[in-house]
Amino acid sequence: MYEHQTTVRVRYAETDPMNVVYYGNYAQYFEVGRVESFRELGFSYKIIEELGIMLPVVELNIKYLRPARYDDLLTIKSQIRNLPIDHRIVFDQEIYNEEGKLLTVGMVKLYFMDEKLGNRAAMPPLMLEKLSVYFS
Amino acid sequence: MYEHQTTVRVRYAETDPMNVVYYGNYAQYFEVGRVESFRELGFSYKIIEELGIMLPVVELNIKYLRPARYDDLLTIKSQIRNLPIDHRIVFDQEIYNEEGKLLTVGMVKLYFMDEKLGNRAAMPPLMLEKLSVYFS
Amino acid sequence: MYEHQTTVRVRYAETDPMNVVYYGNYAQYFEVGRVESFRELGFSYKIIEELGIMLPVVELNIKYLRPARYDDLLTIKSQIRNLPIDHRIVFDQEIYNEEGKLLTVGMVKLYFMDEKLGNRAAMPPLMLEKLSVYFS
Amino acid sequence: MYEHQTTVRVRYAETDPMNVVYYGNYAQYFEVGRVESFRELGFSYKIIEELGIMLPVVELNIKYLRPARYDDLLTIKSQIRNLPIDHRIVFDQEIYNEEGKLLTVGMVKLYFMDEKLGNRAAMPPLMLEKLSVYFS
Repeated sequence: MYEHQTTVRVRYAETDPMNVVYYGNYAQYFEVGRVESFRELGFSYKIIEELGIMLPVVELNIKYLRPARYDDLLTIKSQIRNLPIDHRIVFDQEIYNEEGKLLTVGMVKLYFMDEKLGNRAAMPPLMLEKLSVYFS
Repeated sequence: MYEHQTTVRVRYAETDPMNVVYYGNYAQYFEVGRVESFRELGFSYKIIEELGIMLPVVELNIKYLRPARYDDLLTIKSQIRNLPIDHRIVFDQEIYNEEGKLLTVGMVKLYFMDEKLGNRAAMPPLMLEKLSVYFS
Repeated sequence: MYEHQTTVRVRYAETDPMNVVYYGNYAQYFEVGRVESFRELGFSYKIIEELGIMLPVVELNIKYLRPARYDDLLTIKSQIRNLPIDHRIVFDQEIYNEEGKLLTVGMVKLYFMDEKLGNRAAMPPLMLEKLSVYFS
Repeated sequence: MYEHQTTVRVRYAETDPMNVVYYGNYAQYFEVGRVESFRELGFSYKIIEELGIMLPVVELNIKYLRPARYDDLLTIKSQIRNLPIDHRIVFDQEIYNEEGKLLTVGMVKLYFMDEKLGNRAAMPPLMLEKLSVYFS
């Protein structure tokens, strides 16, 4: 299993009149978690795009347990529990507040897609190499 | 069952470098669908808030089948399949493009919450009255 | 002078804990105003992009006079006061609420840019033709 | 003069099909710059709100010189050039990319407002004390 943590500070723009983060904005926090987990592995999402591979999200499930509030420093925990063996990659993601309370649990499924051909692709070899270390 | 349809035009701001709507922005389209379905029933979400009732989202599931693109005129279909009998209300929502292709399928679960007491509440009587007509 | 009006409903996602529209989100309303004014003229912004012309914003000035609130049905007034004679086009835009109160005044300057060459371009002939009718 | 610097990483959600940051999203970066400058001074914007003071933006001017792109690590420079002597506070803000190129220049004017009374207020004494050190 590969696991990664990063933090994000809640912006005023991301909160709503209930004084909590708008439910759609957690998708951005999950994005930050995935992007930084890629960066720690040694390749950025930008590099993946430059290889002609896109990673559209095909499924998103979120449970909102407790609200995140303005100015909270959130911890985003991102896990890849299974080494991708085809065009699919699944992230299990959790968001915690500064007191360590679990706020949000999410699952994000993405497809590797060949940008030019427009069809499903395998995970780039560089990425497989870096990631497989965690699944031996 | 109660069913409602409304439309929304995709904004440039909502699309990303893949030239498609960013995956987190569908939450806003679903919100528009729910809000307009409430309005058609004869009470606005604003009125619910003025009654001291909040409706936070507690669960969101989305499947992204086909991308929505800039300037697409999307149809948002919102269904309430079961009359709420406690603090929970579930919307099944679908998004179609102008050619009638199904792009996105979502399920959004919300809780009625008493804003002052901070705990779960029943659906406001006015809302129950208007909605129950569709479940006889 | 060319003038156009359209409406937009304030989304919950666009408001903040002050219970008003977040100051950065007016840029999206102004975008809706410009896009719909183009559409009424007989060509969509999408068509301009397909001609290989991009329209990046190079300057934005906004004065916030009164707040827009959740669920307000806003009227966006967009004016082109001078027929573009080079790569620049300027929109003067205003936002009103349902009571006719002026909420926001903005000026947005954009450049016509050739997407491939990456440099400034003239307004597409089709657009000039449609627009010049209003400046005779 | 008081000056402060912080950084922000461009999110995929914040970019558009031109592969650059959407023009309205710079308002969020400027917000991050102001909030972090307050924090460095020894009080958070959250504390100001808890004192019953709101800080709505009343004017925003932005010049877009060069585009910010996906995954860019931006530096936000925020200056308070004049010590507020009434209800107004003005931030001059600039955004630079990693190569030190100036991308965006902005001016943001805000009002101190008493949340309960709904009228203009003076800068909170704590804030005046911390800030005046830089203007002797």
